[in-house]
Amino acid sequence: MSAPGREACLEMDRQDPLGALRDEFWLDASVIYLDGNSLGAPSRAAHARVVQALGDEWGRGLIRSWDEAGWADAPARLGDRLGRILGAAPGEVAVTDSTTVNLYKLLVAALEASPDRAVILSEQGNFPTDLYIAEGIARLRPGVEVRLVERDQIASALDGSVAVLLLSHVDYRLGRLHDMEALTGAAHRAGALALWDLSHSAGAVPVELDAWQADMAVGCTYKYLNGGPGSPALLYVAGRLQSRLRSPVNGWFGHAHPFRFDASYVPAPGIERWLAGTPPILACAALEGALEIWDHAGIEAAREKSLRLGDLMIELADARLARWGVTVASPRAGSERGSQVSLAHPEAGPLMRALIERGVIGDVRPPNLMRFGFPALYTRFVDVHDAVDRLEEILNVGAHRQARFQVGGRVP
Amino acid sequence: MSAPGREACLEMDRQDPLGALRDEFWLDASVIYLDGNSLGAPSRAAHARVVQALGDEWGRGLIRSWDEAGWADAPARLGDRLGRILGAAPGEVAVTDSTTVNLYKLLVAALEASPDRAVILSEQGNFPTDLYIAEGIARLRPGVEVRLVERDQIASALDGSVAVLLLSHVDYRLGRLHDMEALTGAAHRAGALALWDLSHSAGAVPVELDAWQADMAVGCTYKYLNGGPGSPALLYVAGRLQSRLRSPVNGWFGHAHPFRFDASYVPAPGIERWLAGTPPILACAALEGALEIWDHAGIEAAREKSLRLGDLMIELADARLARWGVTVASPRAGSERGSQVSLAHPEAGPLMRALIERGVIGDVRPPNLMRFGFPALYTRFVDVHDAVDRLEEILNVGAHRQARFQVGGRVP
Repeated sequence: MSAPGREACLEMDRQDPLGALRDEFWLDASVIYLDGNSLGAPSRAAHARVVQALGDEWGRGLIRSWDEAGWADAPARLGDRLGRILGAAPGEVAVTDSTTVNLYKLLVAALEASPDRAVILSEQGNFPTDLYIAEGIARLRPGVEVRLVERDQIASALDGSVAVLLLSHVDYRLGRLHDMEALTGAAHRAGALALWDLSHSAGAVPVELDAWQADMAVGCTYKYLNGGPGSPALLYVAGRLQSRLRSPVNGWFGHAHPFRFDASYVPAPGIERWLAGTPPILACAALEGALEIWDHAGIEAAREKSLRLGDLMIELADARLARWGVTVASPRAGSERGSQVSLAHPEAGPLMRALIERGVIGDVRPPNLMRFGFPALYTRFVDVHDAVDRLEEILNVGAHRQARFQVGGRVP
Repeated sequence: MSAPGREACLEMDRQDPLGALRDEFWLDASVIYLDGNSLGAPSRAAHARVVQALGDEWGRGLIRSWDEAGWADAPARLGDRLGRILGAAPGEVAVTDSTTVNLYKLLVAALEASPDRAVILSEQGNFPTDLYIAEGIARLRPGVEVRLVERDQIASALDGSVAVLLLSHVDYRLGRLHDMEALTGAAHRAGALALWDLSHSAGAVPVELDAWQADMAVGCTYKYLNGGPGSPALLYVAGRLQSRLRSPVNGWFGHAHPFRFDASYVPAPGIERWLAGTPPILACAALEGALEIWDHAGIEAAREKSLRLGDLMIELADARLARWGVTVASPRAGSERGSQVSLAHPEAGPLMRALIERGVIGDVRPPNLMRFGFPALYTRFVDVHDAVDRLEEILNVGAHRQARFQVGGRVP
C-alpha cells in the first residue's frame, strides 16, 4: 500500500501553515471531529464573545446595548464581515433569521419581480428545506410551479417560464460543486434570476458573489463558519437589485426607520429591508466571535488545505476500505468537490454509529452515505488517517453488526 | 403629601413575598431598571444555561447534542414550559423564529383557512411590526384588506368579511389590557379567528389561552420572560385547530420526519409544523434558563405585585410630578392595565435621557411618553420611589434642558 501512513500524516500536520489555528478551537482531545460540515466546532473567540454579550452587554448595559454595544447594527455588521469571504460588497449581506426563512423571503420576492414567469427551477436532490420552501410557496400561489430536473439538465431547462433558478452551490449529500458563474450566466441569458444556497460553501470554498453576477444567496453560518447550533443565516442581494426586490415578511427591523414606530411600512433602502423581527443578539455574538478567525486565515488557503484533506481521505479509502465494499461517492476531482467526502456502504448507519462510539464523528445520509467534512481551520491530516484506520478496524472485525449499532438517531 | 416615602417603600420590599427572587437576577446595583417591558434582565440561571450549552453541549457534545442534549426537542420543550404560564396544554406552544415571522405564518394560515373572508381586523396603534406584517401580506395577496379601527370599535367591526382578528393583549404604548375572552368570543360569533400578540402580557399578566378559547397567539420572550435580546418567540395554536392550519414557510424542522430527508413536504402533525429552519440553540438555552424561575413564582403572585408597583408609580406621579405637567397616560384601574405605566410629558425624550444618566432606565415612545415597566420578579418598590424622586429632581432643576439630553437614540 502506498497510501500515507500515520507518521506521514503527522508530518503533513507539522508542515501545515494553518495548523496552529486549531488551538483557537475548543475541541475535546478524545474526539476526531469530521462533522464540521453539519455543525462547526466552537472557537474560543465565539465562547468569549457570547460571555461578553451575556455579561457586559445584556447584564451591565441592559436595554442601552441596542445603541451602545452595537446590537441594532449586528445584522449588517456581521453581513459585511461575511461579505469579505463571499466576494460581496459592503451592504450586500445581512445576517438574519434562518436559511429556510431567508429562502422563503427571496423566492417570493423573485416571483414578484418576474410577474410573467412562474417557475422555480431547481435540482432533484437539492437540500430538502430548499425544496420544501419552494413547494410551500407553489401550494399557496396559483400558477407557481416548482420544476425539478437532473443535475445535467439544468442549463437546458432554463427557458422563458423560469423566474428563478434555485441551487445549492455545494450539494449536501455528495459535496458536488456547481459552477456558479456559468449557471448564473445561463440563468441570466434565459431572463431568470439566480438564487444560490451557500450552506455548504460559505467558509469552505471560494465564492465570488459579485464577480460571478449572482443575484441572491442564502446560507447557513453554523457549518464551516462555526457560528453555533442554529446560528442566524446569511442573506445576500446584489446591490443592483436591492431597490427592485421586496421582502414579503415586513417587520420593524426591516423598516426604513424602525424606532419611529410609523403606522405604515417603508422598506429600508439597503440590505436591512430583509430583516424582520428583533435580531437574535446572543446568537449573533457567537457568530461574530467565530468570524474573527478569518482575519488570520484566507479562504484560498483554507480551500487548498481542505482539498488536500479530501484527497487524502479518498486515497486512504481506496487503499484500505475498498475491499470491504466502501466506495467513494463524492467527485474525485477537487475542482468538482466542496469540502466533504461521502463514502457509500450498504451498512452506512451502523458503521457510523460504531465509528462515533470510537470517537470519530461524521454523519450519515440515507440510504447509504457516510459523510466526512474537512473544515480546514481545525481538521488535521492525522484525523483523516485515524478515521480511516478505525473504520477499517470496525469493518475488519464486523463491530458494526452488534445489535447496539442498529438503532437510528436524529442528527441534522 | 400622603404618598409613600422611601422608608415605607423599603418596608414594602421587606414584606414582599417575591422579594428574594431579585437575587436570582444579575442586576447592576448602580442601576434602577424599569425597562424590563422592553428587555428583561438576565438571570443567573439564563447565564449558567448558556455557558452549559456552549461548553458541555456544543463544545463537548458537538453534533451529538442534537439528540443527547435535547436540542432537537428544544422548541417543543420550551413551548410546553411556556404553556404552563399561558394556560395552554402541552403540545400547543412552540418556541421558534421571531414574533414577526410567527405572525406572518399564522396570518397567512388564517387567511387560507377562511377562503371566503379576506379582512385582517386590527386596532389603530397596534404594535408596528404586527401591522407591517399584515400590510405586507395584503400587498401580495389580491383582495386581502387590513382594516384598522379604534379600540372601542373592534367588537362592532367584526362582520362576515373578517377572517382574523389580530390584537395585542396589552398595548405597547400605554399598557392597556384587552379582555381576551370577550373579544375572542365576539370574533367567534362573527365567524372569525382570533390571533393574540402576547408580547406585553406573557409573564406579566395571567393568560388563559385554552380557557378563553384563543385560536392562535404569538409573543416575545425577551420582555417579561427574560429570554435575552432577540430570544426566539412563542407561537400558540389551539389543539382543536392544529390539523386545519398550515404554515406557508415549510422548512425541514416543520416536517413530520425532519431527518429522513424526504423529497416532499409533509407537515408534522402537532405544533412542530410551525417550525421552519434549524432552531437557535444558544438562544433557546438562555430562554430555558430564564424560565426556571417560574417554578418558584406563580403568575398570579407576580401579577399582584406588579399591579401594586404600578399603583405606587401612579400615586407618586400624581403627588410629586403632576405640578410639572407630567400626566398618567396608562389606565389607572389595574384591571385595565398590563405591567407598565406610561407617563406623558412634552419633553419625554430629554427627561428620559436625563433619567438614564442618573441610573434610572425606562424608555420613550413618540411623541410624548415615558414608559416604565414593572416586572415583579426583580423590581423593588423602592426602585419606583427612587425613579420618581430623580424625575422630580430633574424637573425641579430643569436638568433635561441641557443640550446633551436633546439628541435622540435608538432603543427598541
